[in-house]
Amino acid sequence: MIKVVVLGSGNVASHLIRAFSESNETAIVQVFSRHPVSYGNIPVTGDYGALLPADLYLIAVADDAIAEVSRMLPFEGRLVAHTSGSVALRETDGRNRRGVFYPLQSFSKSRNIDFATVPLCLETEHEADYSLLQQVAESISGQVYQVGSEQRRSLHLSAVFVNNFVNHLYHIGEQLCTENGLPFDILRPLIAETAAKITGIPPSEAQTGPARRHDNTTLLKHREQLQSHPLYLLLYSLFTESIQKSE
Amino acid sequence: MIKVVVLGSGNVASHLIRAFSESNETAIVQVFSRHPVSYGNIPVTGDYGALLPADLYLIAVADDAIAEVSRMLPFEGRLVAHTSGSVALRETDGRNRRGVFYPLQSFSKSRNIDFATVPLCLETEHEADYSLLQQVAESISGQVYQVGSEQRRSLHLSAVFVNNFVNHLYHIGEQLCTENGLPFDILRPLIAETAAKITGIPPSEAQTGPARRHDNTTLLKHREQLQSHPLYLLLYSLFTESIQKSE
Ligand SMILES: NC(=O)c1ccc[n+]([C@@H]2O[C@H](COP(=O)([O-])OP(=O)(O)OC[C@H]3O[C@@H](n4cnc5c(N)ncnc54)[C@H](OP(=O)(O)O)[C@@H]3O)[C@@H](O)[C@H]2O)c1
Ligand SMILES: NC(=O)c1ccc[n+]([C@@H]2O[C@H](COP(=O)([O-])OP(=O)(O)OC[C@H]3O[C@@H](n4cnc5c(N)ncnc54)[C@H](OP(=O)(O)O)[C@@H]3O)[C@@H](O)[C@H]2O)c1
Repeated sequence: MIKVVVLGSGNVASHLIRAFSESNETAIVQVFSRHPVSYGNIPVTGDYGALLPADLYLIAVADDAIAEVSRMLPFEGRLVAHTSGSVALRETDGRNRRGVFYPLQSFSKSRNIDFATVPLCLETEHEADYSLLQQVAESISGQVYQVGSEQRRSLHLSAVFVNNFVNHLYHIGEQLCTENGLPFDILRPLIAETAAKITGIPPSEAQTGPARRHDNTTLLKHREQLQSHPLYLLLYSLFTESIQKSE
Repeated sequence: MIKVVVLGSGNVASHLIRAFSESNETAIVQVFSRHPVSYGNIPVTGDYGALLPADLYLIAVADDAIAEVSRMLPFEGRLVAHTSGSVALRETDGRNRRGVFYPLQSFSKSRNIDFATVPLCLETEHEADYSLLQQVAESISGQVYQVGSEQRRSLHLSAVFVNNFVNHLYHIGEQLCTENGLPFDILRPLIAETAAKITGIPPSEAQTGPARRHDNTTLLKHREQLQSHPLYLLLYSLFTESIQKSE
């Protein structure tokens, strides 16, 4: 059994702990949390001095606390990986062997995620450490990728576009419905189909709509409808331009 | 059996014909198409003079041909509905009883759609015609809504945001991946989860990311990464502003 200590008790830590508890190859031997938490039989500590020996320490804390937590570890030469998409490998303390274990998914405590499908993006400072990190990753997911810090930065940026910005477009759709006395439910099948469509064809081929068709009459009507939403109007114009430039 | 004639043989016409062929209450008695097509046993004509009597004529042709096709019909006083999200009820010829039968979904010939889940947005000029249109709609879908022309215009605009613009964001994600030697597949689970998440909670609650968190360090890093993509950089800034204004 590979022994893992998880530091943190937020969204990512909780999902990781659940996933590892179903693995036969990896065991969480301890969880570190600043505040009291309970994860079944797993020992929890809030004291860096009481950290147990392990093959891997996974730092799943807020981005701006990762470096600090890595400096608090009272040992050296051990494998320590963080789970962030936007923190470089070299930002953690150099006394330990550095790694990254970035799960490319959107986690919240209220939603279950099938970890087997979560892409895990791995990086290690020392090549010799990669196979252990890979073994740990493969014990919970079928999607394991070797991704350098530079690549991970772009991946995190891409994730902002396809997750945060897409969700904001859903919000705009909801708002336009509500303002016009329509239930948001009416848009749900279209939202589902839009996401499903690109499993078969690339997004560039799936692109439709008045911008792509250069349907200037509709583009003009839509701009008029958005007069009372100046920011959405700007977004509309920018998307139209960007879609037409991508042809 | 309610008798329906479909005019057009494009994406929407083809999906409608397939859906009606599985209905026990509605029969397609004829298809009108400018060019030769075949839909099994259903008679096809390209001659307006040969149109058969029916309870409903569904005009599923290109937006800018709807008015023209409605004027070509060699009869009056019959129920004629178009399938467009952006054409007003009154844009079709007034000699017949006007209606709208707008399926709020993205259709392409290559993808099957479960019509039972497609929201059908109905409108009739005369109240007395509504129940027939509703009966036809309910024979193929469980999601039938009465939607006025003004509401339909906003719905169509909302659809542009949650379908066309969302798809363009997928395209941007793909491009950023490709440029950095990463497969687009790595983003797929996140795309699926982003769409699935809002089935349980409203988009405003599902919103996460550096803009929402006012994480200025990451926002700045991301903007730097987008220097070589000026339009994406503008989109990034506008989304950041819009997300922060929506809080
Ligand atoms: N959420 C996601 O979708 C997601 C996806 C991929 C990667 N990530 C990355 O995973 C990491 C954790 O994210 P998360 O969403 O799990 O965050 P979270 O739910 O906000 O949890 C943050 C955790 O960090 C702990 N923490 C914060 N400051 C600390 C400090 N100074 N010392 C010790 N512990 C501290 C918090 O403890 P308290 O509860 O005591 O404050 C909490 O357990 C981040 O690097 C994030 O970028 C997140
Ligand atoms: N596609 C969607 O996702 C979708 C969703 C909801 C609503 N709609 C609406 O449904 C309608 C049809 O869209 P579509 O996607 O099915 O279009 P489409 O695939 O491009 O098909 C257009 C049809 O219109 C016919 N047509 C064009 N000009 C004509 C004319 N002057 N006289 C007779 N027939 C003519 C075409 O005939 P030829 O093949 O001979 O050119 C073709 O059969 C539009 O009003 C659209 O706004 C579309």
